Amino acid sequence: MTLAEIQQIIEQEIKQLKWENEPNGLYQPIEYILSLGGKRVRPALTLMATDMFGGNIREAMPATLALEIFHNFTLLHDDVMDKADVRRGQPTVHKKWNENTAILSGDQMLIESYKMLGRTTPALFNQVFPLFSQMGTEICEGQQYDMEFEKRNDVTINEYINMIRLKTAVLLGTALRIGSLVAQAPEADQIELYNFGINIGLAFQLKDDYLDVYGDEKTFGKAIGGDILCNKKTYMLITAFQEASSGARQELEHLMKPNTCSPLEKIAAVTNLYNSLGVNTKCEQAINHYHQAALANLERIQLPEDRKQNLCLLAEKLMNRQD
Amino acid sequence: MTLAEIQQIIEQEIKQLKWENEPNGLYQPIEYILSLGGKRVRPALTLMATDMFGGNIREAMPATLALEIFHNFTLLHDDVMDKADVRRGQPTVHKKWNENTAILSGDQMLIESYKMLGRTTPALFNQVFPLFSQMGTEICEGQQYDMEFEKRNDVTINEYINMIRLKTAVLLGTALRIGSLVAQAPEADQIELYNFGINIGLAFQLKDDYLDVYGDEKTFGKAIGGDILCNKKTYMLITAFQEASSGARQELEHLMKPNTCSPLEKIAAVTNLYNSLGVNTKCEQAINHYHQAALANLERIQLPEDRKQNLCLLAEKLMNRQD
Repeated sequence: MTLAEIQQIIEQEIKQLKWENEPNGLYQPIEYILSLGGKRVRPALTLMATDMFGGNIREAMPATLALEIFHNFTLLHDDVMDKADVRRGQPTVHKKWNENTAILSGDQMLIESYKMLGRTTPALFNQVFPLFSQMGTEICEGQQYDMEFEKRNDVTINEYINMIRLKTAVLLGTALRIGSLVAQAPEADQIELYNFGINIGLAFQLKDDYLDVYGDEKTFGKAIGGDILCNKKTYMLITAFQEASSGARQELEHLMKPNTCSPLEKIAAVTNLYNSLGVNTKCEQAINHYHQAALANLERIQLPEDRKQNLCLLAEKLMNRQD
Repeated sequence: MTLAEIQQIIEQEIKQLKWENEPNGLYQPIEYILSLGGKRVRPALTLMATDMFGGNIREAMPATLALEIFHNFTLLHDDVMDKADVRRGQPTVHKKWNENTAILSGDQMLIESYKMLGRTTPALFNQVFPLFSQMGTEICEGQQYDMEFEKRNDVTINEYINMIRLKTAVLLGTALRIGSLVAQAPEADQIELYNFGINIGLAFQLKDDYLDVYGDEKTFGKAIGGDILCNKKTYMLITAFQEASSGARQELEHLMKPNTCSPLEKIAAVTNLYNSLGVNTKCEQAINHYHQAALANLERIQLPEDRKQNLCLLAEKLMNRQD
């Protein structure tokens, strides 16, 4: 099965989800956020993992949809917490409705994700349930660290990597592991696949940090330098502080103060500093490191090479993306 | 087992719950809200139901704690949505910390409630899980109706009763049903017990509406007339509008406008209107109706009378409370 075929199946399944009509104010935002699409990477990973081990993707469907519903629940609440106005080019739920709606419909989505998970066969459910719940906890922990880091000036690279592992990578790893579990893959392979997801997730997030500075505005889909303008503690900024001499550090701190120069000047000056400190190279190396680690995980899985082709291609695609 | 013994066991169990240390900002609010106590009515109902049918209350403990954690999750989020500053005499989580903390720690509590539920034996878990999830959905629906009703002026008594059934009563009914399920009570008895909880929950909420107007400030624990001052659509106000002649309706609408008189004058005038329209009697009758319905549910359960004594007493206590 190709990625395109899998994505098409997922879109169909999501469109066919039936929500209660009343109270409308609770269920409409759920349909709205789920209809905004996105790449459906997480559910695709689950089905690819099931397919790869010769499992039946129909059996994986409840858990697959549960993961996508859970992911979209986190988007609703994260957008409230981050005060984000736009999601996938459309107004966020708390902008289109209000904050209370985003909170409550998000809660309902979290419960719905468990209900969907409960549609798997009982034997499978008892195995999938703890993995799903542990993932949920770790994602909340990641979001908490992310918010705490905004107020700290001494975040280390290790702390940052741990945060993005929890906030972003664990969902990819769990999606893959659950997919392979449905296909009853050997446990060692399930764990390799989980770690493949973690490493791809880390590389993916670092690439995101990188593209915010070095991306092409036309293909990146959002304005370049957004993270720089709001002093976001990305891999780039943390590395810059780590590598900077006391002079460069002073310059960086000065640039981070409000109203010292125009937005375009700030982006240019910080980018220059990143260049002179070799932050771009460091980040490219880190992305490559996690990409290679992911491929090594895939390598160790006991399956013929052609079975791994799909995931290998997806990893390549996520790594080489310009958007 | 007496109610006091059961409550003591629950307090001990909650104190012994172990939460992760890090990130502290995620777990501290969870410990805080759970330490504020309250009457622990919901977990007590579960254990009383298990005990009543000769079940082992230790077997019921995971589900019991899951219900209490879930209930406290709803408190965190409801307090954000209602902008409530005080809970059980202490600052609410979003006041003591901030709104984002209340949202995220609440999310984590919802996940933790499922994790706790997952500690029941597998056979039991598969039965309890759908009841628990359905309860969660209905509570969200109830909160949504509650918020929508604040903006509507045509809420009927039936709609109001349905709202408090979802928001308040379903949790009591489900707590009882799960308790009886652990003891493997006959399904017909489980359903009678669920309906007992629904009816007690409705009577309990109506009593709350009543005491806000006719309670004794010393024993009620909060100022009398709070609902009147914020024009809250309680059973009292909805009944008043239903019973009012066009003259009385105009007077009521006038009193609901801001700054037409002092708070004390407003409370006195609205209370007078309630008296002249017989709203107090209507509410007392409704409370009595649901209380009697609850006792009839209990009556139909196939157990010796002395086994039902505890629940009967608790119902009496909740009905005759002045606080």
